[in-house]
Amino acid sequence: MIEELGDWRRTHYSKDISSKLDGKEAIVFGWIEDIRDLGKITFYTLRDKEGIIQITVHKKNVSKKLLEKLSLIKRQYAIGVKGIIKANPEAPKGVELIPLEIKILGEAIHPLPLDPTGRTPAELDTRLKARILDLRRPESRAIFLIRHEVTNAIRSFLIKKGYIEVHTPRIISAAAEGGAALFKINYFDSQAYLAQSPELYKEQLITVFEKVFEIGTFFRAEETHTRRHLNEFISVDLEEAFVTMNDVMKVQEEMIVYAISKVKEERKEELEILGVNLEIPKIPFKRYTYEEILKELEKAGEKIEWGNDISTPAYRKLGNLHLNEFYFIIDWPSKTRPFYIKPKEDNPELSYAFDLMYEWIEIASGGSRVDKKTVFLERLKEQNLNPNSFKFYLDVFDYGMPPHAGWGLGLDRLIMALLKRENIREVVLFPRDRFLLVP
Amino acid sequence: MIEELGDWRRTHYSKDISSKLDGKEAIVFGWIEDIRDLGKITFYTLRDKEGIIQITVHKKNVSKKLLEKLSLIKRQYAIGVKGIIKANPEAPKGVELIPLEIKILGEAIHPLPLDPTGRTPAELDTRLKARILDLRRPESRAIFLIRHEVTNAIRSFLIKKGYIEVHTPRIISAAAEGGAALFKINYFDSQAYLAQSPELYKEQLITVFEKVFEIGTFFRAEETHTRRHLNEFISVDLEEAFVTMNDVMKVQEEMIVYAISKVKEERKEELEILGVNLEIPKIPFKRYTYEEILKELEKAGEKIEWGNDISTPAYRKLGNLHLNEFYFIIDWPSKTRPFYIKPKEDNPELSYAFDLMYEWIEIASGGSRVDKKTVFLERLKEQNLNPNSFKFYLDVFDYGMPPHAGWGLGLDRLIMALLKRENIREVVLFPRDRFLLVP
Repeated sequence: MIEELGDWRRTHYSKDISSKLDGKEAIVFGWIEDIRDLGKITFYTLRDKEGIIQITVHKKNVSKKLLEKLSLIKRQYAIGVKGIIKANPEAPKGVELIPLEIKILGEAIHPLPLDPTGRTPAELDTRLKARILDLRRPESRAIFLIRHEVTNAIRSFLIKKGYIEVHTPRIISAAAEGGAALFKINYFDSQAYLAQSPELYKEQLITVFEKVFEIGTFFRAEETHTRRHLNEFISVDLEEAFVTMNDVMKVQEEMIVYAISKVKEERKEELEILGVNLEIPKIPFKRYTYEEILKELEKAGEKIEWGNDISTPAYRKLGNLHLNEFYFIIDWPSKTRPFYIKPKEDNPELSYAFDLMYEWIEIASGGSRVDKKTVFLERLKEQNLNPNSFKFYLDVFDYGMPPHAGWGLGLDRLIMALLKRENIREVVLFPRDRFLLVP
Repeated sequence: MIEELGDWRRTHYSKDISSKLDGKEAIVFGWIEDIRDLGKITFYTLRDKEGIIQITVHKKNVSKKLLEKLSLIKRQYAIGVKGIIKANPEAPKGVELIPLEIKILGEAIHPLPLDPTGRTPAELDTRLKARILDLRRPESRAIFLIRHEVTNAIRSFLIKKGYIEVHTPRIISAAAEGGAALFKINYFDSQAYLAQSPELYKEQLITVFEKVFEIGTFFRAEETHTRRHLNEFISVDLEEAFVTMNDVMKVQEEMIVYAISKVKEERKEELEILGVNLEIPKIPFKRYTYEEILKELEKAGEKIEWGNDISTPAYRKLGNLHLNEFYFIIDWPSKTRPFYIKPKEDNPELSYAFDLMYEWIEIASGGSRVDKKTVFLERLKEQNLNPNSFKFYLDVFDYGMPPHAGWGLGLDRLIMALLKRENIREVVLFPRDRFLLVP
């Protein structure tokens, strides 16, 4: 028996109800988290977005009609309660709500596939299948409230610094990055692809707005199935004219420090739920050259040939050597980097590229970009890419393309690192990987 | 001859240079908008993101080397200028920069396919082909700076009101909305689709966070080629638990008023460039029932059969009757609305649905949502949809699904309406329609 909301509207969230309001009437809404029937008295724990409130029913004091309705309620029912706030030193937070009337607004069929209070632990696979119940666990909520805070902090920071928010296309005609696999779409009568980054669009846009950023969903069709890869991800992208790599690295580290400070200020409770002691890292973050990292790895027994990418086991080792540390790796060999990364003038084997790392996880990548058409064409050739696919971008070099630099940061990765989660799927509401397409 | 940036960094934007800084040294960057050679003296207009500054070259006062370099410069070259600020009542804004040294940082090959100053008018088709030059026109810049402001205002408003920002998937396994065509993707070994709205995800998420919003790219595969449709668009989506349609309509109208006020405050100059006199609309916006609109249209000579959608010509007529007006159309026939819209309890032919209109353009759609499983199943059946495709959502009705309401608002449409543009392509950086996939 599900009732209509009618003219009931919330007067208080759980956290607003205190013993100071003793005697006042309130309407609250939420989900029943727990029911304890002690015979003469029943306690209902009601959870709303702000916390919990105890609903106390003294059976002898309530009407038969209300008792009957109360008897229908099970855990996770969505209900509304109109009642009187009562100070009670024995109740949690010293206050309870004595119901005058209730509305059953949503039913729950038991057994539920997952315990949404989090008291019964479950494997991640099971949790992802019943994701919406899993998200009700206090830990999951905490993760996404912190994620909300980080996203907002990042955006506010960039806007305050004068970056303009742009929306670049997701459906594109050609692969922006040679190596990476792209999802194909049937686009009316043509073949199109899903963008894996806004790279060549944001680079063009600096000729109009000079400083741009975008936060949005992008796609990679890689088959790799790891704990830190998803096929759909949120990227924070930034690009700026008349600057180099070092300038945008500074913006990035300041932005991260700002986001962490905001989370510490605004989400104390959530950090506590997650048992995370977030430290504000010192800036500047350390800069290690690729060569220095190779030496460090060699000492640790992991030999990487100069010019090769760093393997996952090597990154794992690196992580152990850089616990709790944000750090940059710079001076990457040009051939390990995408074609739009600028080779060094005095030594083209090396590039103006950087990665931001947290322990073993790569959080962001960026660099100074190629700003000369001749160099761009050479880079395409080196990477066996067809210049015809890049005509729309090559043209821009003939319209006054200034030096510029930028980066892309994986928002999911950043949250994973900050909250010390072992699997990126924990910090994404509905993750997408090769095997996960539902829910 | 393109030079390296080296250690040159901007000291001032054009707008920061005033006659008060007379005698000070400055480094500025930007694009050459105009060159006027008067013989002994040459004026260069340099544009950066904040405006323009005049560079004045008295030929007899500069070195041969500098003169030679200056002779290479053409319109739209990206350059850097190190010079001395000089108060000069005859210069624009009473100030000019006398160059000591310049750097050519990006060349432009003439003739350009489009005049980026906007002085030579061009057709929209031509403009979209050379979009990046078109975006440099003052009108285009103004549009996107205002768009940035609106997006930011909307988001700040919703966050202040307690809505949590969420990121829902773009790659989905089943069509959320029956009628609309979806783009197909090859997703590894399965068939998947591009989401055309976060509808069923945001509806689930209210059981966790109660108040959620998302601003992001969505996709529709419709073949219609009109001035107000694109195949990729930015949607602002909101959903809230324990409320009805009327509550979320209030949020929407307040949000729009807030965004307009912000634009008026922060983007005076851009509004002027566009010749737009933005008025702050009064709230509440007027609510007209579908029946009232039908009567109004009939009076205007446009007969619509009850139960049918309103046609484009009819909307055009309606627009003429509601000039300069934001208004809601409510009480839509259930059969014109998607399956997740709640039919009225006392008259299921009608639904709790609304559209927000501006003149003839539909800006947003929303309503109270179906909150009972039985009704949801009936609605699927009515619209010939297969319940198996919606299992992931149907399950949520068994987990305590409360009454809820929400809406989706087309950001591109809103900007189009506010800035009185006739074609939605003008307010999207790189629009995507059936024929436009590049750039």
